[in-house]
Amino acid sequence: MQKLIFTNDVVLALRDEIAAAEADKVFVLADKNTVRRVVPLLHIDSAIEIVEVAAGDGNKTLDAVAGVWKILTEKGATRRSLLVNVGGGMVTDLGGFAAATFKRGIRFINLPTTLLGAVDAAVGGKTGINFMGLKNQVGSFCEAISVIVSTCFFGTLPTEELLSGYAEMLKHGLISSENAYRRIASYDVLSAPLDGLLPLLKENVEVKSRIVADDPYEKGLRKSLNLGHTAGHAMESLAMKRNESVAHGFAVAHGLLVEMIISHIVLGFPSTDLHRHAALLRQAYASFPAFTCDDYRQLLGLMRHDKKNRSSLAINFTLLHRPGLPEIDCEVPEDVITAALDIYRDLLGM
Amino acid sequence: MQKLIFTNDVVLALRDEIAAAEADKVFVLADKNTVRRVVPLLHIDSAIEIVEVAAGDGNKTLDAVAGVWKILTEKGATRRSLLVNVGGGMVTDLGGFAAATFKRGIRFINLPTTLLGAVDAAVGGKTGINFMGLKNQVGSFCEAISVIVSTCFFGTLPTEELLSGYAEMLKHGLISSENAYRRIASYDVLSAPLDGLLPLLKENVEVKSRIVADDPYEKGLRKSLNLGHTAGHAMESLAMKRNESVAHGFAVAHGLLVEMIISHIVLGFPSTDLHRHAALLRQAYASFPAFTCDDYRQLLGLMRHDKKNRSSLAINFTLLHRPGLPEIDCEVPEDVITAALDIYRDLLGM
Repeated sequence: MQKLIFTNDVVLALRDEIAAAEADKVFVLADKNTVRRVVPLLHIDSAIEIVEVAAGDGNKTLDAVAGVWKILTEKGATRRSLLVNVGGGMVTDLGGFAAATFKRGIRFINLPTTLLGAVDAAVGGKTGINFMGLKNQVGSFCEAISVIVSTCFFGTLPTEELLSGYAEMLKHGLISSENAYRRIASYDVLSAPLDGLLPLLKENVEVKSRIVADDPYEKGLRKSLNLGHTAGHAMESLAMKRNESVAHGFAVAHGLLVEMIISHIVLGFPSTDLHRHAALLRQAYASFPAFTCDDYRQLLGLMRHDKKNRSSLAINFTLLHRPGLPEIDCEVPEDVITAALDIYRDLLGM
Repeated sequence: MQKLIFTNDVVLALRDEIAAAEADKVFVLADKNTVRRVVPLLHIDSAIEIVEVAAGDGNKTLDAVAGVWKILTEKGATRRSLLVNVGGGMVTDLGGFAAATFKRGIRFINLPTTLLGAVDAAVGGKTGINFMGLKNQVGSFCEAISVIVSTCFFGTLPTEELLSGYAEMLKHGLISSENAYRRIASYDVLSAPLDGLLPLLKENVEVKSRIVADDPYEKGLRKSLNLGHTAGHAMESLAMKRNESVAHGFAVAHGLLVEMIISHIVLGFPSTDLHRHAALLRQAYASFPAFTCDDYRQLLGLMRHDKKNRSSLAINFTLLHRPGLPEIDCEVPEDVITAALDIYRDLLGM
């Protein structure tokens, strides 16, 4: 299993992990903002080479990864070298892919600086870049040798980013256990002190890590991590087509509600949990595009084309009997999805 | 372990393997010459999409792999799709990398059409492309779901290509057993009928396959496959710097002699085997650049910078006690290598 370190002494943890790797050369990859704001706080050795990439998911491109390979080549990186990815999901995805493929794979460490990055991209070995406008169309499965998770960078994160990460935490709670879900759901990410987040984060990230260790290539169990994502991705894609900006975590939060409703219809998921989640969306995740019944055809089409669908005839979902009891590979008929979308809009007053 | 099929009924084997994969879409990747000369002989289903790349190692580039990803994307390839790589090492390396990274990995089958491809690139999961003039600088470890090995395409191969493949076969013989080595060494690849090659090829490719299964990421045992390559790569690189063209297999054949001599000095490798190999080089591999003692400095530098060297202080070789008994990670002092180069030139009358 991937080594996970939960600490707020990031400087020490990073120094220890770099030393343990016994690399011949060490590189730190970060985007422009992180190079300026975060990297100086890490007090890294002056012999370490800083590799800078442009910020933003729009720069998670083949050109950017080729730029990283180029610098590694020019600076004499070998198969014994080490790359440390410092940043959000964009940097850990891109840097993970660059490392996974440079000389057929060099080791890398992830140091996520965002909540979403910590609970989602940094752990689990999914690396990748966008290609021809498609998210993570090119990539590989390759795990960081260690991931250093800390809340010390989260104090300055925008509210929207915290909420995005929190949505993925709710998802991990929902697929792991009733108790874990209750603990996350009762944590107020926007006003509770960040110190209280680190133990919750540990519990939460370890859920994902265990699932990934059991099923690294997403043949079965790992599909449970797609909870909320089939409906969420469809809403995200439709919004993008209309040039409306949607944070990924917000789409997951809304996708979770749609899929809780489907779960309620198909598997009897408790309506109390569903209503609690709807109330959270109305309160914290209200900044989201409104869909009408005229959008259903497109949303269904997008769900169908989600890459996790094996057949072109059925729409495949991960659903829940109750918090802690997911079921993968549920084939859901279109009329059930349509009914769920009606209820979703009704609950949110769309 | 990777599925290896040795047959001269390639049409049937390919049809069976494609059917067994139960893919939603099948793509065949081949270079321009192979699309014209070989693909029509395969009688593939008309629904299968042919993806063509330019021929030659000079086209094993990032642009070419991006072109493959683009076609896969445009033609609607999913994670359940299948890529069949038909060709020499250039196509199986490039196609393997394209498949290993498209949507984080789709399955692929290798159908090598050259002897060198069959014994070397097609088996063992090393995929990659050249980058910034460096061979296989970018790539990944990812095995084909099956490799179909046949001699039926070898009849039209140029002599140089057959000899290149034969050099790698000798290497596999040398690291596997006394008997296997004798069987390969007594097969006359240039005049014996190709039918007799298939069982030898089976024995030979299975040597590599077993080693790779034991050590997929080249942490230990797999380094024995580098026999002949440290000296060989250095001679190949020096020739390339001088714009002299050298077939990779010829460099391996010559590298094997240099490393047999070092093995003789350091580990007592039998001089009779060494002299037999020298005689073979004089007879069949004579078309090779001559080196002088003025080149030793450069050759040593190139051996030192071979990517398999962990330290910058020692030159690491795989050596042989005798055929069938390799020893990896031998640190060889420069004066021994220099002495071996003297003997090598003497044996070949340089």
